[in-house]
Amino acid sequence: MALAIQADDVRAAAERIRPLARKTPVMTSAGFDTEAGTRVYFKCENLQRGGAFKIRGAANLVLSLPRESLGGGVVAYSSGNHAQATAIAARHVGVPSTIVMPEDAPKSKMEATRAQGARIVTYNRFTDSREAIAQSILKESHATLIPPFDHPMIMAGQGTAALELLDETGPLDALIAPVGGGGLLSGCATIAKALNAATRVFGAEPAGANDTFLSMVAGTRIAVHPDTIADGLRSPKPGELTFPVIRELCERIVLVSEDEIRAAVKFVLLRLKILVEPSGAVPVAAVLFHKLPPEIRSVGVIVSGGNVDFEDLARM
Amino acid sequence: MALAIQADDVRAAAERIRPLARKTPVMTSAGFDTEAGTRVYFKCENLQRGGAFKIRGAANLVLSLPRESLGGGVVAYSSGNHAQATAIAARHVGVPSTIVMPEDAPKSKMEATRAQGARIVTYNRFTDSREAIAQSILKESHATLIPPFDHPMIMAGQGTAALELLDETGPLDALIAPVGGGGLLSGCATIAKALNAATRVFGAEPAGANDTFLSMVAGTRIAVHPDTIADGLRSPKPGELTFPVIRELCERIVLVSEDEIRAAVKFVLLRLKILVEPSGAVPVAAVLFHKLPPEIRSVGVIVSGGNVDFEDLARM
Repeated sequence: MALAIQADDVRAAAERIRPLARKTPVMTSAGFDTEAGTRVYFKCENLQRGGAFKIRGAANLVLSLPRESLGGGVVAYSSGNHAQATAIAARHVGVPSTIVMPEDAPKSKMEATRAQGARIVTYNRFTDSREAIAQSILKESHATLIPPFDHPMIMAGQGTAALELLDETGPLDALIAPVGGGGLLSGCATIAKALNAATRVFGAEPAGANDTFLSMVAGTRIAVHPDTIADGLRSPKPGELTFPVIRELCERIVLVSEDEIRAAVKFVLLRLKILVEPSGAVPVAAVLFHKLPPEIRSVGVIVSGGNVDFEDLARM
Repeated sequence: MALAIQADDVRAAAERIRPLARKTPVMTSAGFDTEAGTRVYFKCENLQRGGAFKIRGAANLVLSLPRESLGGGVVAYSSGNHAQATAIAARHVGVPSTIVMPEDAPKSKMEATRAQGARIVTYNRFTDSREAIAQSILKESHATLIPPFDHPMIMAGQGTAALELLDETGPLDALIAPVGGGGLLSGCATIAKALNAATRVFGAEPAGANDTFLSMVAGTRIAVHPDTIADGLRSPKPGELTFPVIRELCERIVLVSEDEIRAAVKFVLLRLKILVEPSGAVPVAAVLFHKLPPEIRSVGVIVSGGNVDFEDLARM
């Protein structure tokens, strides 16, 4: 079966999202390199508009749709970063947005989404189905669904993070990105492999939300009950479209513990002086705690976001 | 009396320190601008080598001295950032460094200084004289003192932060920098006024360490007993060389409270996703809490450093 996206889709996305997404900086740290034993290039999507890479995918999908088809507005369900991204993209093209969020989503993400002009509908993560709620809103309002990861335009949009990174650094031995539903990882793997087939691509997942790890081992999509502080990676199962890409292009999924995630958040904050959210710290932890093959001399790390509540941070 | 430095000294410093200091990014935030009511350009010296602007001055002085005169090594007394900067500059030219630090200096700063290969001598901030200790080391070892602020090469070096900022932004209505001993503010004011005499230059000081504020009002150098979480701004008195420059070129010193400093650290962390230390947050607080004249439509803020212990951060 043909994969859902190709490298040219990522290149087209890079052009399309230019008015909405920021070209984020690539940072390095001699201190981090010494600890990790490899040269590390951090693609700082925590400094992206909306505080995460999600604007890349949401903007790519929203901007690819004819304005007249968006009259009923857009709907998204998301624990946070995709919500804010969808709201930003909707506001940019001048249509209303409705976001379906779990009632225990981080306060900072909920407030930031509301500040972008979105209407927020909450649900109970343990008893309600967010898909069912989103579907009923779609029916009522004739709105367009902006899915969080399992759509070719979303996948291609997220891949622009790796395109920018590799444009700036040149060829790297490896690339690693966090994996929740797999939108970011599938997009990044697609462009990284096209730019240089020798670049080894890894996904990083919390051990407490290891659905993609298990799926890779099994060769088919496996669902789990996620339990992790990395709230952006709590999707229970890889996507129908994302998984085949990941399976084809990624070497393997690296798992990290909750303690390793916390340590990575702290290390990056104190040494690089930037704030990353637990989900964004997952690939950082994988590199910091030597989970990649030792012969890798250079690695690009997609630091996916920086939206975290101060109280949660203090608790670490 | 002629001022200790001129704009050309800052320009020469920019050339001299190039091998050692980083060109730090300038960040903006639409959310911050809305709160502050003005367009703000953050010069991110928290992302500087050693985590603070101090490398600019230390490198400028160390690199200006003939290598053969540095055989006895260098000595500095500092609560932290100048210590680390001096150690980095000394290691770069291959001479030993001895740093005299208060025994209650932030652990992160002490460790980072030791990691640069410096020998550390501690003293009690309340009972010992750091100057006396430094003098006795100088006598023993024939080392060269690298003063923290009151030296033309230090002042000129620190001014390169403003030179880079204004090169990137073009003319601004105002510039604001924190003031401890006045090295940073005097250097920045010198180049800012030379580039555009219309740019209004302000210093920002904690109300609990208001020596420069009082000195400006009195027209002569006044000493205080500093009490503030902004550990980089605890110098008791403006410098002999820095004060005349500040008096000549700065409009006034703006005071902020300890609560305002904490709020600014938090705001910048959660919105800009970067870590600033309390001293670096002082001018941010001045802008955030509307302490500049309202007609100012654009302001450059020197975010001086990002070295803070995780425990101190959690306490906020």
